[in-house]
Amino acid sequence: MSDDVLVVFTPSGKRGRVPAGISVLDAARKLGVDLDSVCGGRGICSKCQVAPGAGQFAKHGIAMAPDALTAINEVEQRYDRLRGLQAGRRLGCQARLQSDAVIDVPPESQLHRQVIRKSASERVMVMDPAVRSYFIEVTQPSLHDPDSDFDRISSALAQQWQIEGLTADLPVLARIQKVLRKGDWQVTAIIGQAEGMAPRLIDLIPGFDQQPLLGLAVDLGTTTIAGHLVALDDGRVLASDGLMNPQIRFGEDLMSRVSYGMMNDSGAAEMTAAVRAGLGDLVARLADEAGVSARQIVDATIVCNPVMHHLLLGLDPVELGQAPFPPVVSDALSLPARDLEVPIHEAARIYILPLIAGHVGADAAAVVLSEQPQKSAAPVLVVDVGTNAELILGDETRVLACSSPTGPAFEGAQINNGQRAAPGAIERVRIDPVTKEPRFRVIGVESWSDEDGFEDAVKATGITGICGSGIIEIVAEMRIAGIIDRSGLIGSPEQTGTARCIPDGRTFSYLLHDGSETGGPRIAVTQGDIRAIQLAKSAVHAGARLLMDEFGIEEVDRVVLAGAFGAHISPLHALVLGMIPNCDPARVTSAGNAAGTGARMALCSRAARREIEAEVRRITRIETAIAPLFQQHFVAANGIPHATDAFDKLAGVVTLPDVGFQASAGRARRRRG
Amino acid sequence: MSDDVLVVFTPSGKRGRVPAGISVLDAARKLGVDLDSVCGGRGICSKCQVAPGAGQFAKHGIAMAPDALTAINEVEQRYDRLRGLQAGRRLGCQARLQSDAVIDVPPESQLHRQVIRKSASERVMVMDPAVRSYFIEVTQPSLHDPDSDFDRISSALAQQWQIEGLTADLPVLARIQKVLRKGDWQVTAIIGQAEGMAPRLIDLIPGFDQQPLLGLAVDLGTTTIAGHLVALDDGRVLASDGLMNPQIRFGEDLMSRVSYGMMNDSGAAEMTAAVRAGLGDLVARLADEAGVSARQIVDATIVCNPVMHHLLLGLDPVELGQAPFPPVVSDALSLPARDLEVPIHEAARIYILPLIAGHVGADAAAVVLSEQPQKSAAPVLVVDVGTNAELILGDETRVLACSSPTGPAFEGAQINNGQRAAPGAIERVRIDPVTKEPRFRVIGVESWSDEDGFEDAVKATGITGICGSGIIEIVAEMRIAGIIDRSGLIGSPEQTGTARCIPDGRTFSYLLHDGSETGGPRIAVTQGDIRAIQLAKSAVHAGARLLMDEFGIEEVDRVVLAGAFGAHISPLHALVLGMIPNCDPARVTSAGNAAGTGARMALCSRAARREIEAEVRRITRIETAIAPLFQQHFVAANGIPHATDAFDKLAGVVTLPDVGFQASAGRARRRRG
Repeated sequence: MSDDVLVVFTPSGKRGRVPAGISVLDAARKLGVDLDSVCGGRGICSKCQVAPGAGQFAKHGIAMAPDALTAINEVEQRYDRLRGLQAGRRLGCQARLQSDAVIDVPPESQLHRQVIRKSASERVMVMDPAVRSYFIEVTQPSLHDPDSDFDRISSALAQQWQIEGLTADLPVLARIQKVLRKGDWQVTAIIGQAEGMAPRLIDLIPGFDQQPLLGLAVDLGTTTIAGHLVALDDGRVLASDGLMNPQIRFGEDLMSRVSYGMMNDSGAAEMTAAVRAGLGDLVARLADEAGVSARQIVDATIVCNPVMHHLLLGLDPVELGQAPFPPVVSDALSLPARDLEVPIHEAARIYILPLIAGHVGADAAAVVLSEQPQKSAAPVLVVDVGTNAELILGDETRVLACSSPTGPAFEGAQINNGQRAAPGAIERVRIDPVTKEPRFRVIGVESWSDEDGFEDAVKATGITGICGSGIIEIVAEMRIAGIIDRSGLIGSPEQTGTARCIPDGRTFSYLLHDGSETGGPRIAVTQGDIRAIQLAKSAVHAGARLLMDEFGIEEVDRVVLAGAFGAHISPLHALVLGMIPNCDPARVTSAGNAAGTGARMALCSRAARREIEAEVRRITRIETAIAPLFQQHFVAANGIPHATDAFDKLAGVVTLPDVGFQASAGRARRRRG
Repeated sequence: MSDDVLVVFTPSGKRGRVPAGISVLDAARKLGVDLDSVCGGRGICSKCQVAPGAGQFAKHGIAMAPDALTAINEVEQRYDRLRGLQAGRRLGCQARLQSDAVIDVPPESQLHRQVIRKSASERVMVMDPAVRSYFIEVTQPSLHDPDSDFDRISSALAQQWQIEGLTADLPVLARIQKVLRKGDWQVTAIIGQAEGMAPRLIDLIPGFDQQPLLGLAVDLGTTTIAGHLVALDDGRVLASDGLMNPQIRFGEDLMSRVSYGMMNDSGAAEMTAAVRAGLGDLVARLADEAGVSARQIVDATIVCNPVMHHLLLGLDPVELGQAPFPPVVSDALSLPARDLEVPIHEAARIYILPLIAGHVGADAAAVVLSEQPQKSAAPVLVVDVGTNAELILGDETRVLACSSPTGPAFEGAQINNGQRAAPGAIERVRIDPVTKEPRFRVIGVESWSDEDGFEDAVKATGITGICGSGIIEIVAEMRIAGIIDRSGLIGSPEQTGTARCIPDGRTFSYLLHDGSETGGPRIAVTQGDIRAIQLAKSAVHAGARLLMDEFGIEEVDRVVLAGAFGAHISPLHALVLGMIPNCDPARVTSAGNAAGTGARMALCSRAARREIEAEVRRITRIETAIAPLFQQHFVAANGIPHATDAFDKLAGVVTLPDVGFQASAGRARRRRG
């Protein structure tokens, strides 16, 4: 056995000479190799498992001797007996290097594990949570060494884990005495290490604690509150759930809630209490689903729009309802969970992502974090449609953001047969360009309306109305089928060749479904519905064009539809409608719940928090309200897909008939008169 | 008017060339002269008043022209009209330098004012509180500049006061929106700048706020809670008050409270609630006395012994009651006032001084801060006597500390006619060495018992017993008068020549006062009383000797008696009793309530907080319980003043008669048998 040995770790390729007899774990630490350990090398946690190589490694210039590592020892044998050690694996803290060796660190033994996010772009995220646990051995006090219990924990963390300057809140301090003694001076310390703050003792548990630390990622929306329960060691989602935002009873949309706050002295406080209670319900549900205690949740992140942000924090949202819309505070916040009355671990903090502006929220910031326009080579437009559309346009050079007031049409409000996305709502529609006959799908039923079994299947819910994604598809399909013209007018039965176009006052409606025979509603799309959708989509389009003007481009390379709504609308139909600017349909994708993904990223990675805080400071905010060109863009966007833009990227995918019904509307009026 | 001018500021002597036309305030800032300003030079606060010189200043080489400063302007005239400007004074922010000048900064215009502390050593303290107010002008938001309200405040503080990285808690954030608009974007920000923490917005007040910021300094004792209300600009005490610690109902001394906590499940919590309620009462009383609102109290400091420390914080004190006495936490703490339920400003923090050890408290640390043994050239012994004696011995080279268990005798417990220090208690005693007749003073009565008017004056309270300081004087006086010998034995009437020595079982008692004729008690000092005092004082003496051994000295240069008790006992009598080691009586002084002074210093000065935190880490803790020599010192100290030490420093001040009553005790026994 020579004095020092050469060791190469794979897959990192880190190599170096270390003293013979050193443990593999210590060698890994010396060489900066990412090898996990919670117990600090005491053979308890098994996190440091490695797979030693064997034989010749020409690439590394190493011929491994059979006894390059010490033989399996008692600690490993016991561990194998009790919990099973995979063949070829060793505990890195037990196996010692006797001669040159090549050691593989399997993915599950890496502290900073890489997690592939299932998003359009499949990016890799490195686990780097703000809360971790550390097993420590604490020296016992004696008359010769009567330091405080807290000093002992602090010293143990400094010596055994290089964590300096520990702090703790009173409730944790009140427990440490008993826990140290119960654990016989061996304890697991749960430590919060948030950016810019001293390390904080969140909890202390007797002995070596095997329970995984959990985190909560919340997308707090105007209508729904969605949450994920996440394991903080590897980022896996243990439970997901959502509930209606209990604030709904104060107003369906944001502006009605802001008004409620203005009209009622205790209005804002009531709404704050309601949303906090909702978060409490969500926590209880998630913990129940995953079969864990809510106290295991030691960290949380929340993303939300500015009004929800203020109402959650107990800040008056009134200024957000009027120009110049200044928020009370826009920076990222890290607040004690108990200050927000969220019933997770009593010493947990909640990280709230920064607002981009008074009308571009932390949810938009989370979308930026998830979709990373700032890393795109070509300009990408990210569109998050709700009551407000939040628009982000950017590439590596710069990122712009604005919001545009769409109104509630996309949520099914102001639509004749509109309704929420709920069982019974029509969500997908196709219209035959020849027969003009529709077929559709209803939420809660697998088959299309023209397929076998549909009628039976739909009996449970009935066909009750049209939800937001449904109305977008219908209007686009009507345009493709020549039932409406570029200006949005519905043609007469004669002009369109279908009896489904029915006179309705001075205009026509398109009958989508007549349920009256079976006691259900007649579901039709009125001219008013088309106008409402035109206004809403023009706002989105105009906002996007304003950003493009500012960016100095005529075209975007790709479009990402974000948000729960974006996940349900068809990219092609959004293009035909002209909600988004002219773009190759193959380059329009849905990002799913990108805000929720951003919340999970911030939960799993402190680097992600730093990144979004820096990025938000860099984003240029564009105010649609004072942009001279906004109105002009808005008017031109009223056409379907656009009054002046040919939308040439649609060519080859879909052909829009060149119809015009101006006269027919006149005829309908005359007929009525 | 030349391009730049020479200006000299007195008394600092700081001088330099500044551009002509600059305001005196700006010149002071450029040259690093300590000139106060709260409004930042807007002519509102009047804190920057200066006294310009006139004529020749040979020393500085300056001949001041009559128009060296600009003439008094409108702002100054208005200020003079409204609030009065002292003759010869100018507002530093208004007066501008036109040619060379000498400018005096009067003491009240210095930001870091020097305050002479009324202590034995009359040290100077520089005001440097952790909370200050700053007047700021905040830019209004517009669509072109829609930053958050908090960002605006943060920027204004950075630009106008160089305070970077502001933070705020939720309750303050919830108010800033309204305050900014009410103050028309001119506001006074109350900022906490505690050591090692980011600057914190404590409150925001519309306009320029004239109300002084207040601080609370508390000495939380086992028996009493004493507090001072202090103005944070100049350190003046606006009100002082004290009340009984409501925990008394759970036990008079610390150990009985620790036991109560051990015996009753919710015992510690009840005591925590009681002491916090007591602090609340104290706050209410102090605010009432000073005619201020408790919300004006924006900072607080607390000193206390380790058991009170733990009970206040809600930490279990049990471990403090048994070796090795480890506290839960000993570092200085800065905690939100609301966490301790102290009803001062809701965003205030409370600074609790560090514990020195599990049985040497934050009160002892405060004594160190006040008495500064670490700055003494020769070794000084600081003695704080209560149920425990806390002893500190140090000089510039090192500081040692220990505690020694005295028991409750010095508090009047275990004494035949002992009682608390309350009206009617005998507190001072003199015994005529020839006649052996006593005279005394009673709490609540000005005159001595042998003076005219005493009998009338004392009728209100009666003469009810002997308090702690009284018993020390009596025992020492009995020794001086030859009524007891070195071993502490009381002599017979024959041996002492006075009928006041009365047989009492096998021993004698000394009759101090016979109130039986007027229906009052007979007050006598029994042999048991002497023994109890001997045990108590031996513990103090032995602790001091142990520190001296460790320090390697045979004698201390001076002794400081600290604590409320120390303030009431006579240094000479403490020496005669041998409670403290042999020392020149002229070098034994009382420091008054040094712990309370230390609390006030920490309130007024962040430098003082840094100093005591650093000093406490440097202090060597000596454990009397494991010191082999402690018992030996204790036994030798049983003599009065000492069994073996001659106490030669008493020579020339008082002569102790060389009497011995060993035989007489035997005689008393025989007489009884």
